[in-house]
Amino acid sequence: MGTHRATLPQVADRAGVSLASASRALHGSGASKAMVEKVRVAAAELGYQADATGRSLRLRRTFQIAFAVADIGNPVYVEMMKALQGELAGRGYRLMVATTGDSAESTIELVHGLSSGLVDGLVVSPLRVTDALVTALREAPVPVVVIGRSLEDSGLNSVSTDSAGGIGQAVAHIVALGRRRIGFLNGPADTTPGSARRRGFDEAVEREGFSADLVDAETAGDFTVAAGRAGAQALLARHAGHRLDAIVAANDLLAIGAIKAVRETGLHVPEDVAVTGMDDTEIGQVYQPSLTSVSLHSSERGRRAAELMLALLDDPSSGPTNVFVAPELRVRESTCHEEEMA
Amino acid sequence: MGTHRATLPQVADRAGVSLASASRALHGSGASKAMVEKVRVAAAELGYQADATGRSLRLRRTFQIAFAVADIGNPVYVEMMKALQGELAGRGYRLMVATTGDSAESTIELVHGLSSGLVDGLVVSPLRVTDALVTALREAPVPVVVIGRSLEDSGLNSVSTDSAGGIGQAVAHIVALGRRRIGFLNGPADTTPGSARRRGFDEAVEREGFSADLVDAETAGDFTVAAGRAGAQALLARHAGHRLDAIVAANDLLAIGAIKAVRETGLHVPEDVAVTGMDDTEIGQVYQPSLTSVSLHSSERGRRAAELMLALLDDPSSGPTNVFVAPELRVRESTCHEEEMA
Repeated sequence: MGTHRATLPQVADRAGVSLASASRALHGSGASKAMVEKVRVAAAELGYQADATGRSLRLRRTFQIAFAVADIGNPVYVEMMKALQGELAGRGYRLMVATTGDSAESTIELVHGLSSGLVDGLVVSPLRVTDALVTALREAPVPVVVIGRSLEDSGLNSVSTDSAGGIGQAVAHIVALGRRRIGFLNGPADTTPGSARRRGFDEAVEREGFSADLVDAETAGDFTVAAGRAGAQALLARHAGHRLDAIVAANDLLAIGAIKAVRETGLHVPEDVAVTGMDDTEIGQVYQPSLTSVSLHSSERGRRAAELMLALLDDPSSGPTNVFVAPELRVRESTCHEEEMA
Repeated sequence: MGTHRATLPQVADRAGVSLASASRALHGSGASKAMVEKVRVAAAELGYQADATGRSLRLRRTFQIAFAVADIGNPVYVEMMKALQGELAGRGYRLMVATTGDSAESTIELVHGLSSGLVDGLVVSPLRVTDALVTALREAPVPVVVIGRSLEDSGLNSVSTDSAGGIGQAVAHIVALGRRRIGFLNGPADTTPGSARRRGFDEAVEREGFSADLVDAETAGDFTVAAGRAGAQALLARHAGHRLDAIVAANDLLAIGAIKAVRETGLHVPEDVAVTGMDDTEIGQVYQPSLTSVSLHSSERGRRAAELMLALLDDPSSGPTNVFVAPELRVRESTCHEEEMA
């Protein structure tokens, strides 16, 4: 009967379980019978007593974090999910991923639904950002971290990158290779990534001030392999007489579609047409030829978003913090022969 | 003031919103202000009055379905997610995806956590199935559908396939091509897919009764490209003198790792070594060479699981139903030259 009272972390340690599991076991939600037994034994051995304040505080914790994404099938989001999951699991939080589609309205609906004590926090990577969405996020009943463009002015926590600058790096690389007839293969221009990448391409072409014989752009219906193939076919067909020698694609899936389209015309990548992607996905890395791609560091952004979220959970009044992760070109076989790379 | 009372579906129709949105708007959880306004106007115009029974029944609905998967980065689960999402969204349900890792215990913890009214149903695709997990699933407070092996005896609803039989199809194809020195590249054998695929390989080799010069097996540390590459390197190194002419891999990611390993030894796929995968993923389809792979119809299984779930939500006493989806070999470039395929 010393003056030191046992704490919940000490109980968790003794039971050999996470803090989240110990809390669930003692406060009656979501623990298995075996877990409850184990934690109660540890609590009894340590003479642990949950005080009322602590309990009511902890009871409100769900130890679940929501991650809202537009498209669960996009490898970029899969990378982010894995990184978020890894960071959060280490602190006893479970990640719940919700798909919103590409409308801001369905993301707003999700945010309003969070008031029911479903999760302790929300990480969101919206494809379209409207004023109504920003308002909903600011008024959300739980801490919010936005992955996407910087929302510094809005008072929201964010992890952003610069996809426009990334497209600029790809264009500069293509120009340095001596290519002069460049096609830009974009996804839908009314999305946040689509409009930023288009702006990046236009700025790069102007900034480079290079003597391009030709610059042309095509907008694919979607950020997918199938849409990229169709878009590249249209792009190549428009310049069949005096062909393109490079295609800068707005993401890796579009770039893979473009490589397929180039091959179908009997041409070779990179000898005849160099192709660049964006997002530096695993599929691009293992593809043959491996894809030159601009990394927007999806994993890193997921990890940084998890760190911001954990900081907010510890102290909801902290921040707002805005983290910037710079893009980085990864040169591989789809623009350079192996000799050139060595 | 007729005898016909307006129903909630009629209100939803008039407001031009889904039934789920109308319910949320009228019962006070998770709707935007604009949505609440729109639905209230429609309700007023139709003279709709929520009766107490209907309300309490609907109030318990969250219009959210959980999907618990071992590894959110695995393309098979991504395919299932997309299919589930598509089916459920059409009926106004949102999919929440939770990662469980590969332990049965963490899946059990998730099931226990569902008692708090988080979701209306659970679709689960466990990597390891223990008795404790089956018990937890049977006692779950919401309808459960299992995607994986058939759990017919347990009284649970399930969508199953036959991955062992699928490996048999791949072996039969390899044998028909005249290959006689076959390596089997498996993932961890203590997982449900790993043990089933191993059994499938052993049964196929015995059933074929073919005059194999050599049959060897290697277990990779994980179902990933990197683990497949390392596993295939070990497999190839063991038979450097008189090389393997085929590798049957337990999934597409392992098969892509194997193709990389084959190429690193200066050999060609499929001329020197034919390689098969399993799961028929998009990455395998777009890979160069495109992968011969056994489809376990991930999309189809996701769709069927969603149908079972929707039936259970309409009538919780229905079932149990056990749906079987047969595997199907898709022959592509990694085992056959284009001439052979034509």
